[in-house]
Amino acid sequence: MKRKIRMGMVGGGPGAFIGAVHRMAARLDGEIELVCGVFGRDPAKSRACAEELYLDPARGYADYQSMIKAEKALPEDQKIDFVSICTPNRFHFPVAKAFLEAGFHVLCEKPLAMSSAEALELEALVKKSGKMFCLMHNYTGFPMVRQARQLIAEGKLGTIRKVNVEYSLGWLAAPNAGKQAAWRVDPKQAGISGCMADIGTHAQNLIEFVTGMPIREVSAELATFVPGRALDDDGSVLLRFDNGARGVIFASDVATGEENNFILKIYGDKAALEWQEQDPENLFIRSNDAPIQILRRGWPGTGEAAAKNSRLPAGHPEGFIEGFANIYRMFAESIRTGKAGDYPSVTDGVAEMRFLEAIVANSNGTEKWTKITR
Amino acid sequence: MKRKIRMGMVGGGPGAFIGAVHRMAARLDGEIELVCGVFGRDPAKSRACAEELYLDPARGYADYQSMIKAEKALPEDQKIDFVSICTPNRFHFPVAKAFLEAGFHVLCEKPLAMSSAEALELEALVKKSGKMFCLMHNYTGFPMVRQARQLIAEGKLGTIRKVNVEYSLGWLAAPNAGKQAAWRVDPKQAGISGCMADIGTHAQNLIEFVTGMPIREVSAELATFVPGRALDDDGSVLLRFDNGARGVIFASDVATGEENNFILKIYGDKAALEWQEQDPENLFIRSNDAPIQILRRGWPGTGEAAAKNSRLPAGHPEGFIEGFANIYRMFAESIRTGKAGDYPSVTDGVAEMRFLEAIVANSNGTEKWTKITR
Amino acid sequence: MKRKIRMGMVGGGPGAFIGAVHRMAARLDGEIELVCGVFGRDPAKSRACAEELYLDPARGYADYQSMIKAEKALPEDQKIDFVSICTPNRFHFPVAKAFLEAGFHVLCEKPLAMSSAEALELEALVKKSGKMFCLMHNYTGFPMVRQARQLIAEGKLGTIRKVNVEYSLGWLAAPNAGKQAAWRVDPKQAGISGCMADIGTHAQNLIEFVTGMPIREVSAELATFVPGRALDDDGSVLLRFDNGARGVIFASDVATGEENNFILKIYGDKAALEWQEQDPENLFIRSNDAPIQILRRGWPGTGEAAAKNSRLPAGHPEGFIEGFANIYRMFAESIRTGKAGDYPSVTDGVAEMRFLEAIVANSNGTEKWTKITR
Amino acid sequence: MKRKIRMGMVGGGPGAFIGAVHRMAARLDGEIELVCGVFGRDPAKSRACAEELYLDPARGYADYQSMIKAEKALPEDQKIDFVSICTPNRFHFPVAKAFLEAGFHVLCEKPLAMSSAEALELEALVKKSGKMFCLMHNYTGFPMVRQARQLIAEGKLGTIRKVNVEYSLGWLAAPNAGKQAAWRVDPKQAGISGCMADIGTHAQNLIEFVTGMPIREVSAELATFVPGRALDDDGSVLLRFDNGARGVIFASDVATGEENNFILKIYGDKAALEWQEQDPENLFIRSNDAPIQILRRGWPGTGEAAAKNSRLPAGHPEGFIEGFANIYRMFAESIRTGKAGDYPSVTDGVAEMRFLEAIVANSNGTEKWTKITR
Repeated sequence: MKRKIRMGMVGGGPGAFIGAVHRMAARLDGEIELVCGVFGRDPAKSRACAEELYLDPARGYADYQSMIKAEKALPEDQKIDFVSICTPNRFHFPVAKAFLEAGFHVLCEKPLAMSSAEALELEALVKKSGKMFCLMHNYTGFPMVRQARQLIAEGKLGTIRKVNVEYSLGWLAAPNAGKQAAWRVDPKQAGISGCMADIGTHAQNLIEFVTGMPIREVSAELATFVPGRALDDDGSVLLRFDNGARGVIFASDVATGEENNFILKIYGDKAALEWQEQDPENLFIRSNDAPIQILRRGWPGTGEAAAKNSRLPAGHPEGFIEGFANIYRMFAESIRTGKAGDYPSVTDGVAEMRFLEAIVANSNGTEKWTKITR
Repeated sequence: MKRKIRMGMVGGGPGAFIGAVHRMAARLDGEIELVCGVFGRDPAKSRACAEELYLDPARGYADYQSMIKAEKALPEDQKIDFVSICTPNRFHFPVAKAFLEAGFHVLCEKPLAMSSAEALELEALVKKSGKMFCLMHNYTGFPMVRQARQLIAEGKLGTIRKVNVEYSLGWLAAPNAGKQAAWRVDPKQAGISGCMADIGTHAQNLIEFVTGMPIREVSAELATFVPGRALDDDGSVLLRFDNGARGVIFASDVATGEENNFILKIYGDKAALEWQEQDPENLFIRSNDAPIQILRRGWPGTGEAAAKNSRLPAGHPEGFIEGFANIYRMFAESIRTGKAGDYPSVTDGVAEMRFLEAIVANSNGTEKWTKITR
Repeated sequence: MKRKIRMGMVGGGPGAFIGAVHRMAARLDGEIELVCGVFGRDPAKSRACAEELYLDPARGYADYQSMIKAEKALPEDQKIDFVSICTPNRFHFPVAKAFLEAGFHVLCEKPLAMSSAEALELEALVKKSGKMFCLMHNYTGFPMVRQARQLIAEGKLGTIRKVNVEYSLGWLAAPNAGKQAAWRVDPKQAGISGCMADIGTHAQNLIEFVTGMPIREVSAELATFVPGRALDDDGSVLLRFDNGARGVIFASDVATGEENNFILKIYGDKAALEWQEQDPENLFIRSNDAPIQILRRGWPGTGEAAAKNSRLPAGHPEGFIEGFANIYRMFAESIRTGKAGDYPSVTDGVAEMRFLEAIVANSNGTEKWTKITR
Repeated sequence: MKRKIRMGMVGGGPGAFIGAVHRMAARLDGEIELVCGVFGRDPAKSRACAEELYLDPARGYADYQSMIKAEKALPEDQKIDFVSICTPNRFHFPVAKAFLEAGFHVLCEKPLAMSSAEALELEALVKKSGKMFCLMHNYTGFPMVRQARQLIAEGKLGTIRKVNVEYSLGWLAAPNAGKQAAWRVDPKQAGISGCMADIGTHAQNLIEFVTGMPIREVSAELATFVPGRALDDDGSVLLRFDNGARGVIFASDVATGEENNFILKIYGDKAALEWQEQDPENLFIRSNDAPIQILRRGWPGTGEAAAKNSRLPAGHPEGFIEGFANIYRMFAESIRTGKAGDYPSVTDGVAEMRFLEAIVANSNGTEKWTKITR
């Protein structure tokens, strides 16, 4: 019998949103097996959660240190191949570091760390360790996002001139938005930014992923609309790129009534594209000399980049979980082959932290433009 | 450790579309484990496919009779709890019958059988056997379809007057549409109807599921547009219901350019609803005295029926696989509790076959309306 | 100074919907001048309405006979060139007949008459009179409808196989829907049909206009949902065409919550098109081998047929009035040149009446299919 | 006979886009009569154009000075009531000034002038003259924009927090975009800004019109993408308001493939609204505790503000011309009653020029934020 890749998880205990998504995504193709995890800091609760997940309760650990110790001690045919880190931001760095040092592959939720210093340390460690590392930027896993990247790489849009990205949610419009919300605006758990760390980095990452162009300068205004909140719950950023292209990121957690409204519009001198996360099967292509085209996942005219990241025929909607699952599938392949795959890397995590530090500094300062170190 | 429900599969070998969907759906929640199956009639291929699926190759059987025999002989803690049947239509009846008689629960793809006679025999057998039986009509698993049903049951639409259902695909517009297409228009494999058996029954089933109103009379025209095809590749049906409501089903496999365009519009005397499979997260509610409402999966104002069949927050698209997975989740619950769940039953399969026989007879005959026996 | 075409109007008094639309449409291009009319049967009210419309009150007549007499007596440089008839259905025939006989050109709202006998009489009269006659089927005036017709004529869709047309409104869902509604379901004023005469004929006309294919056989069910109503407020019709194409018309005045939901879908063996009146600037083109195309009014890739019937650049929405205005513009051109233009004719009015008589007879009878005489 | 309001026009000669729109809008309701104009600087061409427009060729003037002189000399029952100015920007000020001084009412296309100094001079002159003055910001004439303003004024959105406005066109993406385009990026004709003067001011005006909140501070980046162009063809602006609200304007003439994509999103702490010019009949209302609502022009639940600016029932699309026509209708009413109406005023024109000067200064300078004088 072929063996499945074995996964452990840190985070994703009862009630956690993103941990549950990671598990569904990891299961989807049947090639990854969740075998253990830290599902809470209370030993009994972590064991109970493990059991609930059909695992051996003994492998529901109370902290990542115990998990590492126990897993390392297991026979080769039982211990995990990699850990998936789904905790609040502040644990990303220490947990990733510890697992890398213990010789495990690591898949980690974004943002990579609490600072660019931490990010750089991890980057060096990944290089040194020779382990596979994946930064989970799930939107890069959507088939039509991959297709968008392919079109730009092939020159279909010509020279990119302008980028307009909107990521608006309304869930933090009122003061008490629940446990999932609380840690995201708590500097101790989330870091130097709230909204921008949580969703602004998705915008930054997706722009750079799709266009292949690093953001070089930013002019930003971060805002906090709900009184008493310690971090930004909203932000707008003007962008400059090397080739003279400009852009705007509009991000908000207080955009009342918005669910997860992530819209990417990219204009080149030949054509433009639009993708919306809430309608992810369509990629709109516009130009000045032809009718609007809607590329659809699974349909003729849509290319290889989407096809490789797709499971169903056109018209049978795929969604959010499949986006994660595509990243997991590529990561499992990496583990099997020992070769890094086409998913966001620790270096993308460094870029993300530098972007974040630049916009926070710019928003708090008086200079109009802040350069981003690379 | 809690044990998972164990599933075997008949059908779904290499290249099969719907079998792969069933497997992903069964995996999604981590409570069902695929352990064996018949994945082809050639013993070597079935074994190879089993291995490919991370199963014990010895449990990749060459026919369902061997599978039943072998599984029955296994210890209680290894043998399957139920079989999932994903074959072409003609095997549904014999395979379901054999597994029921062998004491296994059965989940079967639609349509239930090749005739109402077969369907009635299965209905009797299910009753006699005491086993759980689920007819996979996957569209009944979509959260917003469930929500639509709830709204009608609560009287929000008032008395239903008119139903307009469209299910159009273009995949059979040209003569040679591949292996997946071939069996669907071969009377030996598909039965008395092609298009209407394959997708018209989805329309009929969804209308009856959502409204709770059986179709009583039909006037139909089935057509075959591609020369040489032995069964219908298109059909239109006028409908009558007990309460005087009327309806139309427009179904086609030759609707060039359509992917899987399944649209349900139901008009009551108070309000109306619209749901589209290719945009499944929205349920449009219209009335004569208020603005249009869009109920969204996961959002306030959408009720319990959707919430219970949902895994993600609003704005994080769910799709086709989740619809199947909802049915699997309910069926697993049935197996654990011994109680039938809220999914299509063998009796719905009888209704579906009678509908099919009525429209074929009507289309071939001269009478304007044909009554459907119940 | 160039002179404008002079128009008189019968119908369209205070509160009338369609008469006001005709006036706005006739004004839009500044080449037609309304100079007189019958705006009510009470002489004082008709005069008052004329004055309200900035006309000479003396040319607000109390009946069409007086109008004809008075206008004939005016000098050549004052009297009307044509009459626009915007009355309830029953007056279409006598008014059109009288004006034709008096030597005036006629533009008449649809449906042409109360019966095919009347329609045939008018057809003969138009031919004999040598006068210009336009049947106002306003949807044929929309640019993207014209474009749809052009695409089909050019063979872009291939052989037409299936037509699916939906025209649903909710305005008559309740018993008392006002004055505009009342005459439309009164046999004395509307004729043998309510809903189908009012909107079903739009569907029939648009299908024939766009495809160029006459409907040859129908199987219909007309229904009356609101108790006490003397005519149909709903209907569904199966269609057959000479080349074996099939179709469905779904029309309703009791489709709660619908405003004016007129949707045209036409499937050929090469490609398909979709147009929606409530989103009239787009024409969706789908095929089995290319991405969806959205042809937009005014944009590259959209052809001559739309351009000729358009006044604004793309992205600057045109709508309902412009559709009428296109017909008026062509009719004014006809009057100037003496040549019939590319608008619906009295012969289209005959076809419309025969369609209506066929579906009423079929719905009331027991035969499955009824042929339409041509 | 009632008399119509008499209009003269400066600008709008052969081939001009916006002048033709003004004429159609002025005609629509039949209460305004175009009687004369300057339709070109060549006397013969202006006369010919007048004749083409069914006017007395003698009233096709060659310059506005002659027009003023001639019209002043006409009898009271012939001379114009007001002038409509549809020229390139640089003539707005001198022409408006001259007509005001000559005692005529003035309707002027935006932007009001070439500088705030000119704008202030006009403002003083309007006050002194006692004449009616309307600044044509046509988007304020759309029914659902008026409805948006009403909802905010009624507090339905709560406190406004964030505004996201996008106005993107692609028509100037390539160097030679025709005559209509040329003057808009020529500083002599257009002023200190190209894209932002042409469409950025629409965004600024609509934000202030709908929210009632003046923009207080801006941080901007204007860009010129097409080499050799003297003015901006693109711009992004961050906004601050008195109450702490923030905003973004994204405007571009080089957004390849966009037609006239003007999108307004306004987020309050209770609810949010979205309006799109290319789909102008819908107003989306979102909140955190209820389903999405689509308010539709003409439908129950949509209020007085839209109804007063609407001519057709719901579902019968109105568009761009009707927006202009609503402003004309209000302006005609003003002329009849001598009372200023609910349309943009000369003071709005001052605000617009100050906004423009602020963003140009900010974009060229190094300070992060520039205050806007009021």
